[in-house]
Amino acid sequence: MRIALAQLNPLIGDLEGNGARILAACIRAAQAGADLVLTPELSLWGYPPRDLLLRPALVQQQQPQLERLARSLPPGIGVLVGMADPVPGTQQTPELWNALALVRDGAWQVVAHKRLLPSYDVFDETRYFLPGQGGAVLDWNQGDRLWRLGLSICEDLWVEQELQQQRLAGVDPIAELAASGVDLLLNLSASPYGRGKLQLRHQLAARAAARVAAPVLYVNQVGGNDELVFDGASFIVAGDGQPLWQGACGREQLAIWDTEQPNLGCMDLGPEPTAQVSSPGSTAERNSDIAGPKAETAARGTGTAGVQAAGGEMATSAAESLVAAAIVVAGEPEQMLRALVLGVRDYARKCGFGGALLGLSGGIDSALVALIASAALGARNLTALRMPSPWSSQGSLDDAQALADRLDLGLHTVPIEELMQAFDRALTPALGAAPTGVTAENLQSRIRGTLLMAMANQQGKLLLSTGNKSELAVGYCTLYGDMNGGLAVIGDLYKTTVFGLCDWIDSAESEPCRAELGLPAEGELIGAAIRHKPPSAELRPEQKDSDSLPDYNVLDPLLKSYIEGLASPEHLIAGGSDPELAQRVYQLLRRSEFKRRQAAPVLKVSSRSFGGGWRMPIAAA
Amino acid sequence: MRIALAQLNPLIGDLEGNGARILAACIRAAQAGADLVLTPELSLWGYPPRDLLLRPALVQQQQPQLERLARSLPPGIGVLVGMADPVPGTQQTPELWNALALVRDGAWQVVAHKRLLPSYDVFDETRYFLPGQGGAVLDWNQGDRLWRLGLSICEDLWVEQELQQQRLAGVDPIAELAASGVDLLLNLSASPYGRGKLQLRHQLAARAAARVAAPVLYVNQVGGNDELVFDGASFIVAGDGQPLWQGACGREQLAIWDTEQPNLGCMDLGPEPTAQVSSPGSTAERNSDIAGPKAETAARGTGTAGVQAAGGEMATSAAESLVAAAIVVAGEPEQMLRALVLGVRDYARKCGFGGALLGLSGGIDSALVALIASAALGARNLTALRMPSPWSSQGSLDDAQALADRLDLGLHTVPIEELMQAFDRALTPALGAAPTGVTAENLQSRIRGTLLMAMANQQGKLLLSTGNKSELAVGYCTLYGDMNGGLAVIGDLYKTTVFGLCDWIDSAESEPCRAELGLPAEGELIGAAIRHKPPSAELRPEQKDSDSLPDYNVLDPLLKSYIEGLASPEHLIAGGSDPELAQRVYQLLRRSEFKRRQAAPVLKVSSRSFGGGWRMPIAAA
Repeated sequence: MRIALAQLNPLIGDLEGNGARILAACIRAAQAGADLVLTPELSLWGYPPRDLLLRPALVQQQQPQLERLARSLPPGIGVLVGMADPVPGTQQTPELWNALALVRDGAWQVVAHKRLLPSYDVFDETRYFLPGQGGAVLDWNQGDRLWRLGLSICEDLWVEQELQQQRLAGVDPIAELAASGVDLLLNLSASPYGRGKLQLRHQLAARAAARVAAPVLYVNQVGGNDELVFDGASFIVAGDGQPLWQGACGREQLAIWDTEQPNLGCMDLGPEPTAQVSSPGSTAERNSDIAGPKAETAARGTGTAGVQAAGGEMATSAAESLVAAAIVVAGEPEQMLRALVLGVRDYARKCGFGGALLGLSGGIDSALVALIASAALGARNLTALRMPSPWSSQGSLDDAQALADRLDLGLHTVPIEELMQAFDRALTPALGAAPTGVTAENLQSRIRGTLLMAMANQQGKLLLSTGNKSELAVGYCTLYGDMNGGLAVIGDLYKTTVFGLCDWIDSAESEPCRAELGLPAEGELIGAAIRHKPPSAELRPEQKDSDSLPDYNVLDPLLKSYIEGLASPEHLIAGGSDPELAQRVYQLLRRSEFKRRQAAPVLKVSSRSFGGGWRMPIAAA
Repeated sequence: MRIALAQLNPLIGDLEGNGARILAACIRAAQAGADLVLTPELSLWGYPPRDLLLRPALVQQQQPQLERLARSLPPGIGVLVGMADPVPGTQQTPELWNALALVRDGAWQVVAHKRLLPSYDVFDETRYFLPGQGGAVLDWNQGDRLWRLGLSICEDLWVEQELQQQRLAGVDPIAELAASGVDLLLNLSASPYGRGKLQLRHQLAARAAARVAAPVLYVNQVGGNDELVFDGASFIVAGDGQPLWQGACGREQLAIWDTEQPNLGCMDLGPEPTAQVSSPGSTAERNSDIAGPKAETAARGTGTAGVQAAGGEMATSAAESLVAAAIVVAGEPEQMLRALVLGVRDYARKCGFGGALLGLSGGIDSALVALIASAALGARNLTALRMPSPWSSQGSLDDAQALADRLDLGLHTVPIEELMQAFDRALTPALGAAPTGVTAENLQSRIRGTLLMAMANQQGKLLLSTGNKSELAVGYCTLYGDMNGGLAVIGDLYKTTVFGLCDWIDSAESEPCRAELGLPAEGELIGAAIRHKPPSAELRPEQKDSDSLPDYNVLDPLLKSYIEGLASPEHLIAGGSDPELAQRVYQLLRRSEFKRRQAAPVLKVSSRSFGGGWRMPIAAA
């Protein structure tokens, strides 16, 4: 049996477009001789559809799309499509199951319902779905053999308490499939990127493979959707849990796997128009990426030795090298950088922005965002603005210019001193005096935010917010000022993570990755001057972050304990933290909730980011 | 048996303070001879605690608070406390039940788990809780009689499909209690205000009363918590479903109900320091509101004829007048106004703001917000700012001044022309020309937003956002400009609702309500000039909203169908809507999601408001 894994990048809610995308993958899979195509969870909708699932008209629109797919599918091939299955007899707002439909032979039918519905972190599936009842085994006749295919959807695989602590108690779909007996276990997922997530998915699949004593085929969604970046990285593990194949991270891909000859071909379905991201996988895996979207004149695979997949001269790789490939994945800094690039690229593309804009202060945060956005959109589509005040240091202005030169960015300079004076004059009568202290500092930030938004409005560009997670956590940022932007690119990176990532970017180790991302590959990019200067908002003379905040090497571990670890000050104090500091940082975190509620969507890379996975009250103790 | 209904206003997450509040109510209830005190759902936490429930230290802090309550409780009285019960054996992030603890005789024990967990609209209970298994009947020995008390928590009562379409299929806790046989059905709730909600709760309780053939005692939380306003309005219905008593809306109250003598006393536990809101109930109900927080020298009730409750000279009311009272509730405009006043008052108070600030344009939206805030915080604690541009009409400036005079507000005037020119000068080199069109309009709005934030920062005041739901829906508002503020007071009122509410406020019918709210009670308050002028943002010469938008009488019904009704353009077109207009409005709604994601919390008064109950993707079709 020959199975295609279609790692797709959908547009949320675009049922027609996503259906067409699925069909295109099926046509290419058929050319490669595939019998069955796997697509990600809710592939007809894109994940997460959020409250679009509450719109009855969209739910009803699935049927014509599935019918069209059924009519258009090449003969002899089937495809598992992720869709929302309405509970019969429910009116008005239909009750739904998160489901898989099998489309084949001119018809479609629902063959599985998701059993385990995540309602933790960013997930809200119980808002939309009822849990499926009973395991799903699809009997598939292929030639003279019956294949029992165990069907599972994303969370259904996440049943290992020791690997995934947060899941609430519930049924164990894998145990039921193991009891039924299956020849292959299929998992159709939409699992967002997170640090260490790739390894975790492999562990879960390996455990499940051992329990069902069969290979696991794991297909993940790819692409950025608002805060969430789906890294793809689909994979196959053998029945003994050993990795057989690791797919690409960060781009669409179609892989063909043959049960009889454990060889594999895969081809890119992307890249998207502006895509410059390619695989962070191993060399072995990279060698198999040969077909671009223009390789439409495909020859039917012979299906004799190994797999001759469609898409021109698709390469085949020996199983041995694939096994090796599966365990060679990019390091954490590279994975994170690629996820952020994908997140920016897809947010801009899917919102219809051709270009972006950001303020370049000469500090490390905006430097990193400029680099990410350059890789995502191309330097020519990015505009930077320097907005010096009397408190800006010449060093920062020079550093901003040097970075813009290195990245080849257009850089404008708009001084704000006159605007500061005009606001002081305007406010003095009402306030009785010119603004001082934090008010004056916020004013500078809001003048800059207003200038950036005027540029963004006039040029139709996406303003990128450059704040980091440490600032957002303690409120060391100005609402309607430096927080302005459509997307908070590094809002889930602590300041120390920013330092670490920039150190890696400026190291020789990053050069191959930089080259692939279309960035200057040689020498330092961020630059030592930016990486090594003491952090400062430069909102008053000689200001340093350390005037107001503890050193980031002290602050960030505390914040991480409070945010990711959900620790209490008492717990940290018992563990040796300075009591006054631990309490103060906790209070800063709690008291800046009102700012975060109005923050731009934050690209999520950690186990708990600000945004949809962080739902704290404002008016609270 | 004598039962006290304690309608409490908690501070979210303040377990110690809320515990003290419960204890104070119990002491007063004991003085009135009560045997059992009922408090709202999750009364130890305040509802909704949101992600504070994920903090293990807070979950653990419940035990000492319940133990302290058990030690301090007057002898012979018990209290049902809403709390989060950890599932035994769960580590790290504890799994929880939404529970009731009975505190009595120096000890406490969990006696009920909530069965039905709402995960629709603003509710996220499956994020935190497991559903309870099995019905909860509490056997209560009182004198020589055993009372079987049926225990239910909020949603457990919302089992009537015809009344509440959105609930997912599930168990029917009321049926189980009916099968067990109960003498009284208790429902401990935290049910937010919404139009028509009070009547809906009565219908649900009446239906449940008929099913269990016993009276229903319904205790609701009161007070504003971020977006949500809990109106209180606790009540009792008899076993035949007839209303026996209707409690106060919008303030704390302790009511005493005696099963033997169906008479009732109730006393205010509030008002809060700045409270000026009192009951919208009937005259009969108002007469029973006698005790304020200073009436601490209470005499023990005699418990002979009817109820002699504590709290000074508590009045008793005959059952007959109470029945009449229950069906006389305030009209929709009055309920809405009181809810908004409570929402502003509690948001400011619970966030620690003594005063608020707003921009007064001379238009109807800011006029209504000024009036609401005056009632909530007192005119002396409210500052208004006029910020005229060259495009501001003299009429608007005069109208703003006249409104400030009528409400007795401090009004500052800060012209923005010089700032507009300064921004034009600053931006011209980078843009190649001075900003024009929407960019120039947004600039004016952002200059004003920045001035307001400077005032708010310097004076430590809460900035109130004055946009309405129609604007937020179609994006006819400026992010980081007029959207600025800590709370969007009328962000859930369509423009036509704003008109209607202001017409009512200016009518003679509102005079008693205005007097109670501490507002000038005679004559017009908003004023005909403001109510009747054509809406305009005045961001360019002679601009009218109708230049960009259809008439609000046309726009608002479309928006309501799309937002509350979740309709599709095709559905509305089939129903007779203009196709071009229906499509255009839908696109405006979809395309302004990015603005709403960064909007201030919106006080919810409708069945679907923007904010936590509206979770739409941004980068989507």
